[in-house]
Amino acid sequence: MKLTKPYLLFLGESRSLGECKTAAGLRDWCRSDVVGQYSLPAGTVDLGITRHTPESAYAAGARSMVIGIAPVGGAIPPAWWPALLSAVEAGLDIVSGMHTRLKSVPGLAAAAERRGRNLFDVRHSDQVFSAASGLKRTGMRVLTVGTDCALGKKYTALALTKALQGAGRAATFRATGQTGIMISGSGVAIDAVVADFIAGAAEWLSPNNKPDHWDVIEGQGALFHPAYAGVTLGLVHGSQPDALVLCHDPLRTTIDEYPHCPLPTLREAMDQYITAARVTNRAVRFVGVSLNTSKLNDEHRKRLTVELEKEFKLPVIDPIREGAARVAARMVEDFPGANS
Amino acid sequence: MKLTKPYLLFLGESRSLGECKTAAGLRDWCRSDVVGQYSLPAGTVDLGITRHTPESAYAAGARSMVIGIAPVGGAIPPAWWPALLSAVEAGLDIVSGMHTRLKSVPGLAAAAERRGRNLFDVRHSDQVFSAASGLKRTGMRVLTVGTDCALGKKYTALALTKALQGAGRAATFRATGQTGIMISGSGVAIDAVVADFIAGAAEWLSPNNKPDHWDVIEGQGALFHPAYAGVTLGLVHGSQPDALVLCHDPLRTTIDEYPHCPLPTLREAMDQYITAARVTNRAVRFVGVSLNTSKLNDEHRKRLTVELEKEFKLPVIDPIREGAARVAARMVEDFPGANS
Repeated sequence: MKLTKPYLLFLGESRSLGECKTAAGLRDWCRSDVVGQYSLPAGTVDLGITRHTPESAYAAGARSMVIGIAPVGGAIPPAWWPALLSAVEAGLDIVSGMHTRLKSVPGLAAAAERRGRNLFDVRHSDQVFSAASGLKRTGMRVLTVGTDCALGKKYTALALTKALQGAGRAATFRATGQTGIMISGSGVAIDAVVADFIAGAAEWLSPNNKPDHWDVIEGQGALFHPAYAGVTLGLVHGSQPDALVLCHDPLRTTIDEYPHCPLPTLREAMDQYITAARVTNRAVRFVGVSLNTSKLNDEHRKRLTVELEKEFKLPVIDPIREGAARVAARMVEDFPGANS
Repeated sequence: MKLTKPYLLFLGESRSLGECKTAAGLRDWCRSDVVGQYSLPAGTVDLGITRHTPESAYAAGARSMVIGIAPVGGAIPPAWWPALLSAVEAGLDIVSGMHTRLKSVPGLAAAAERRGRNLFDVRHSDQVFSAASGLKRTGMRVLTVGTDCALGKKYTALALTKALQGAGRAATFRATGQTGIMISGSGVAIDAVVADFIAGAAEWLSPNNKPDHWDVIEGQGALFHPAYAGVTLGLVHGSQPDALVLCHDPLRTTIDEYPHCPLPTLREAMDQYITAARVTNRAVRFVGVSLNTSKLNDEHRKRLTVELEKEFKLPVIDPIREGAARVAARMVEDFPGANS
């Protein structure tokens, strides 16, 4: 899946910024790839960027329109159909993370074919992968893992990619989820792959590279998640990470939306991730802990950070507050062979 | 997926009994569901059961023809096409474990529709599953797990189902792979499910049941397998087993076809399976070890069995030599609440 930038962000008729999380993420994480926003008349959300129609966006350089909204249910409402058709007519590809496939919109596939445009359903995976080989690849890999879903694995990986690049290292963000794929323009929706090929798809995602190049791989799920742990384990095995960063939300005590499933301790989580990752990389180690501290007061945050740094002898960061430079520095220190 | 028995076993033009493993498994494990065998003129394999044409098989009661061969590559050769068409015309469903889908055989889908027959591709899964809930279900569950793939997890589960039934317990074999599905007539090809729904499909497979009923679930893959561990972990979580049986081949030191991946010790394997299974069932325990001792001499086998029984304080069986009665007895002892 290789998307064509820059993007026009489609906000439909949305009146909720929360519903437009995907669009806001793209604005924040790949601002230079975003030409503007496009709402239908009933929509009230404003991302603070230039308003465009598909035609004016194309003229301003846009080459894809991204559906930046995630309405409940994931269906494409008929109210959007004319906008999608007009975007294709204006010369734009369409990128969608909806459950409903774009080709189900009446006339859209035919219009795209006539205009030579592509329709990308990033939630689905039609790509055929091989079973994983388990063979060591060249280059370095760091994977963000978590004590749960939805606590900052993508954000941490993006921040770490920036930090490594800032430290003069070659680093590539490797996306495994929809928003990550839109941000980077490529990747694999790893949870949409056929079960037998999870690890194989992860191997494909971070191919052989130069010895001093870091792939920074976006983690998914958690090994302790009653629904999604299979995805996580296959991703760990196929990524064969040299380094791991543990992402955690200190206010969570149970798996999100699974109140009957307690979260492991950070120590238990690390032990299990190391055990799993050693199957394909005996030398794997943790290089940092990434916390979501948005809901902690300053005192609580500082105390927790000091405690965890002492316990694990690792940099403990909040990537939204401070970025990931301290984790990048630790990687430079821990892997001298990977420094150019 | 619900298949219609009894079966006619199709052997194509095969000259190799090894290639006809699926057919031989069906003959051995559900002999009363098999009407006979059907080879093309060039075929030389003989399973020692009645030879039939599709027409005579139908007259003898057969309602499905099962492709009992697994040629390298998994494609359906054109030489089989007339036989498949004639089977449908004779009134039989077709059951296939090939990679190639049955509907790709010219005219077969149309013939099946005209005759009101079904085409089952048991390797593929078109069924839509939900994400797992992680909620405890009623009834008892035992899952066979392994130190590797292809070392007797299906065989052990079938033997254990028989042994439990022989001990007067209510027990159902739950198939998770192609041959298992053909043997039992239903199940889920768990490795063909979309990654996000592995645990969800496993939950679907063993629904709520009576408190004294055992689901005996066929395991897949291994937690230490560099390609397939994600399937295994999702199956463990979704099955929420009360009991586990560890399957092992004592002559293997590395993962089959992955000579660079060492096998864990039995102790390490048990620890990791228990850790994984406790996510959805805190009370899980091992109730036996199942060995493939076909290549050991009597002395070696006896010594190993005694050693392992002493180390793990569990019954250690070879299900092909002796069945699984000793494991079933241990389950009756360990779970008095599940005895009717």
